[in-house]
Amino acid sequence: MPYVNIKITDENVSNEQKQALIKGTTQLLVDVLNKNPKTTFVVIDEVSTDNWGVGYDQVTKIRHLADE
Amino acid sequence: MPYVNIKITDENVSNEQKQALIKGTTQLLVDVLNKNPKTTFVVIDEVSTDNWGVGYDQVTKIRHLADE
Amino acid sequence: MPYVNIKITDENVSNEQKQALIKGTTQLLVDVLNKNPKTTFVVIDEVSTDNWGVGYDQVTKIRHLADE
Amino acid sequence: MPYVNIKITDENVSNEQKQALIKGTTQLLVDVLNKNPKTTFVVIDEVSTDNWGVGYDQVTKIRHLADE
Amino acid sequence: MPYVNIKITDENVSNEQKQALIKGTTQLLVDVLNKNPKTTFVVIDEVSTDNWGVGYDQVTKIRHLADE
Amino acid sequence: MPYVNIKITDENVSNEQKQALIKGTTQLLVDVLNKNPKTTFVVIDEVSTDNWGVGYDQVTKIRHLADE
Repeated sequence: MPYVNIKITDENVSNEQKQALIKGTTQLLVDVLNKNPKTTFVVIDEVSTDNWGVGYDQVTKIRHLADE
Repeated sequence: MPYVNIKITDENVSNEQKQALIKGTTQLLVDVLNKNPKTTFVVIDEVSTDNWGVGYDQVTKIRHLADE
Repeated sequence: MPYVNIKITDENVSNEQKQALIKGTTQLLVDVLNKNPKTTFVVIDEVSTDNWGVGYDQVTKIRHLADE
Repeated sequence: MPYVNIKITDENVSNEQKQALIKGTTQLLVDVLNKNPKTTFVVIDEVSTDNWGVGYDQVTKIRHLADE
Repeated sequence: MPYVNIKITDENVSNEQKQALIKGTTQLLVDVLNKNPKTTFVVIDEVSTDNWGVGYDQVTKIRHLADE
Repeated sequence: MPYVNIKITDENVSNEQKQALIKGTTQLLVDVLNKNPKTTFVVIDEVSTDNWGVGYDQVTKIRHLADE
């Protein structure tokens, strides 16, 4: 009965991509650990780029610098 | 000083229900472990049904199938 | 399909107390939100008092001061 | 490669405050543990005061009582 | 820069299985969301079966019933 | 009443370092957001390098390669 929490930045993740993350993660736990998919939970958290920091900076700022 | 995180799907949870979850969880920690309620935190995360997967599928899809 | 994570300090929590936390939390989600207990997960994390801080100090130190 | 999750109530946290939390947390991990800032993640979760409980009550209610 | 937390019961997970979970999860985030693997973190938590509950019971008890 | 969770690899973190992380994080929340230190929790999780992955690999392997 695994529980998987995927935290990603909130940058236009489509419904198809969410479904692919859920399906792929569940399949991985079935394949590697023989877990029951019926009790495998996958929860995706989409985090604002203002609220995610790396290397001292907000991701929002990192994205702006990359676009320049 | 317990910290409890309750993750549920975002499906019209009322303010009264949130209050009941907070009160009940806090009381449980007082009763079972003699914790101080003043330093018992309960945090409720409401997760979009698109972002919660079980059995390979998004809960959104599972709800739609159940309604048919 | 709720997921509840209970973080408490690692201070001689008995197996009976763990069972009571699991049973009580699950019952609360059934009573308040009509959730299915078969897909309600409760995960208890026991954290060393060296690794839990409140009010600037480790809980280990707070416990020692309280014992004096 | 530390991962730090800061959960705070959603009460008008400014962008400058978020940036200060990210910068300060990252600097702390560099100073104390000599971690590489490029692989130090800081994720801030802003939680509705309806969804955060302490001392049996929602923070929303606690704030209202404090204002009276 | 995704962060993935996999919580599973602590039941003799081998080092090869951990490596497979890390590799598979990272590949999934590269394939689905085009994320950079160098800043994709995967953290596996192995939880004692005494500390994981489902359907009102500890997993320890569920495993014993299944063995009978 | 902030809750901060610091996840780091389990690599000989001393008690003094843990105390410094707790003190520094709490001070940051006091300074930036004017939070009450008495209800500011800091929880440190030390994760085995076998259980932490980055760039497709376990940190254990990355450390061994760095030592060669």
